[in-house]
Amino acid sequence: MPTIVVDVMPKAELLDPQGKAVSGALDRLGVDGFSGVRIGKRFELTVDGDVDDAVLAEAKRIADEILSNSVIEDVVGIEVVE
Amino acid sequence: MPTIVVDVMPKAELLDPQGKAVSGALDRLGVDGFSGVRIGKRFELTVDGDVDDAVLAEAKRIADEILSNSVIEDVVGIEVVE
Repeated sequence: MPTIVVDVMPKAELLDPQGKAVSGALDRLGVDGFSGVRIGKRFELTVDGDVDDAVLAEAKRIADEILSNSVIEDVVGIEVVE
Repeated sequence: MPTIVVDVMPKAELLDPQGKAVSGALDRLGVDGFSGVRIGKRFELTVDGDVDDAVLAEAKRIADEILSNSVIEDVVGIEVVE
């Protein structure tokens, strides 16, 4: 069955405490080469049947209204896989 | 600066309580067309300098050893953006 992947990230202007914690852990563990980490969410929606324009529009609507909080998060990607 | 995106999802054979909760919420809100939701994490690693094979290998290593818990999670994607 096809899957729609929705990626949600904290807005760029907001502090991301989880990401900061991981970034600090990488420094402490001696991992070089990465100057920052931000952590968001990846939703995999299993679709009943085929993906058409209506299903994609519905996925976009729930991504904006239900899966993300537009005050603090941005939907950065919606794509169909499989 | 280039960014490496690491996607981590709960293993398929594990229950995903967060995803189940969202799936139930969609049903209650009258959203049709989606039979399941799973929720994972999306890490955006900002890279100092250029992305070469060594940086990618290091990203893969920290994805497997630090960013994910291999008992319950799979790294489902590592890609370079920008």
